[in-house]
Amino acid sequence: MREMSPKEFRLMVRKGEYAGPTPGVCGGFVQANLLGIPEEFFPDALDFCRKNPAPCPIIDVSPPGRGGRVRVAEGADLHTDLPGYDVFVEGKHEKRVTDISFLREKNLGFILLGCSFSFEWALLEEGIPVRHIELSRNVPMYRTTIPLVPSGPFRGNMVVSMRPIPASLVAKAVLVTSRYPLAHGAPVHVGYPEGIGISDLSSPDFGDPVPLLEGEIPLFWACGVTPRVVIEESRIPLAVTHRPGHMFVTDLSDEEIRDVNSLLPEG
Amino acid sequence: MREMSPKEFRLMVRKGEYAGPTPGVCGGFVQANLLGIPEEFFPDALDFCRKNPAPCPIIDVSPPGRGGRVRVAEGADLHTDLPGYDVFVEGKHEKRVTDISFLREKNLGFILLGCSFSFEWALLEEGIPVRHIELSRNVPMYRTTIPLVPSGPFRGNMVVSMRPIPASLVAKAVLVTSRYPLAHGAPVHVGYPEGIGISDLSSPDFGDPVPLLEGEIPLFWACGVTPRVVIEESRIPLAVTHRPGHMFVTDLSDEEIRDVNSLLPEG
Repeated sequence: MREMSPKEFRLMVRKGEYAGPTPGVCGGFVQANLLGIPEEFFPDALDFCRKNPAPCPIIDVSPPGRGGRVRVAEGADLHTDLPGYDVFVEGKHEKRVTDISFLREKNLGFILLGCSFSFEWALLEEGIPVRHIELSRNVPMYRTTIPLVPSGPFRGNMVVSMRPIPASLVAKAVLVTSRYPLAHGAPVHVGYPEGIGISDLSSPDFGDPVPLLEGEIPLFWACGVTPRVVIEESRIPLAVTHRPGHMFVTDLSDEEIRDVNSLLPEG
Repeated sequence: MREMSPKEFRLMVRKGEYAGPTPGVCGGFVQANLLGIPEEFFPDALDFCRKNPAPCPIIDVSPPGRGGRVRVAEGADLHTDLPGYDVFVEGKHEKRVTDISFLREKNLGFILLGCSFSFEWALLEEGIPVRHIELSRNVPMYRTTIPLVPSGPFRGNMVVSMRPIPASLVAKAVLVTSRYPLAHGAPVHVGYPEGIGISDLSSPDFGDPVPLLEGEIPLFWACGVTPRVVIEESRIPLAVTHRPGHMFVTDLSDEEIRDVNSLLPEG
């Protein structure tokens, strides 16, 4: 599926022919995290993402009433074109499904958020090793003490992902990832886990642990799991996210979002 | 002297009215390290700097026969316009003077190299603390095991300067300094002194030690002391450098060298 076009892939998913994870799918195209929010809370959710662009970089918005259509994916419907969805009721994970057409009557608005796949691809292109990819593991993620800017019911602390980088490549890793602000951008913290409330790197709160080798520095990037945790803590009546690792594949190429701070019409 | 124009300052120096250090002089203007090399070794010296742009970023060149005139400083003469010079004979420091007019007959060529003052100013502007400036000390510098690309008699290992940066500001410090490639650019190493042969941060090879506080990461930048050490080790018959801390003040503003990789006509 690496060579498949995003449109072909989305149609396959819509038909129910694929419900698996998306890393490696449609190589070179931007994948996005999904947030589905009822109309009542949509303005706050959008404001929250705008105020916390590092963990929640907005790729596109499909306001309530737009039927889950977005500009960044021709002919797509966000109710059907992701291989997995998680539905939350009052902040609690209610069920995992492969289609949320049953929620159409709820008139959800959607926000697509950039994810780190784009910058990981860029790191590898620049010869910077990415440990969890080498080990075929999920990236280790940690709850931190870094406060988010609140909006309405949405508040909490940032979740970060960690990638160990050799000391001689840290500056390069910062520079490469800084060019992808819509994929979380540069690290938010470098080398001192205790400073953001992480007491044990070998016990991530999400994902899998990866070893930190001699001469490597732990780099911490804002992570797309942040809004999921914020939704849980908000206890709003209904919300939807993509199933972790089962992202929405857009028509945007990774190059198209390099050095781009916003894709939204009004900025 | 902070408000003085570079031209006024150079004339004052030329007349012998000032022979002190230059940090803080002519605020906002680029200061440069000096290398004076006999004609025989000048092509190798220039080639060496070109091949090692991190420690030796070329701001301007005054080839033998040009009488120490440069494009980046109107009316300047490099024989007279620096407040201090060190003269080396066969790699040994021979004398410290305030004028090298007595060497005019040697027909030296000169290379002006960018120095870290420009990026330190940018760090402070961005709210990133610079410890040795806070403490009114010289920056700590260390010999490393990072090999330089050799050219003719010029070879050796890189010297680096160290600045402790809070973990939350490391990425920003990398990004800010990367915009000044002619002032050494981004750090060459972050967070792991042992990896470049530094066993004890509290015992720098040059400059003064500064404390590394809890939550701070040591960042290492290529340092302008590198060519001085290379000249010592080259043992060429004659060479001149600026006296440390007594730099040449150019007409270039710090902004003019931001995002600029080369000022030389042929690049």
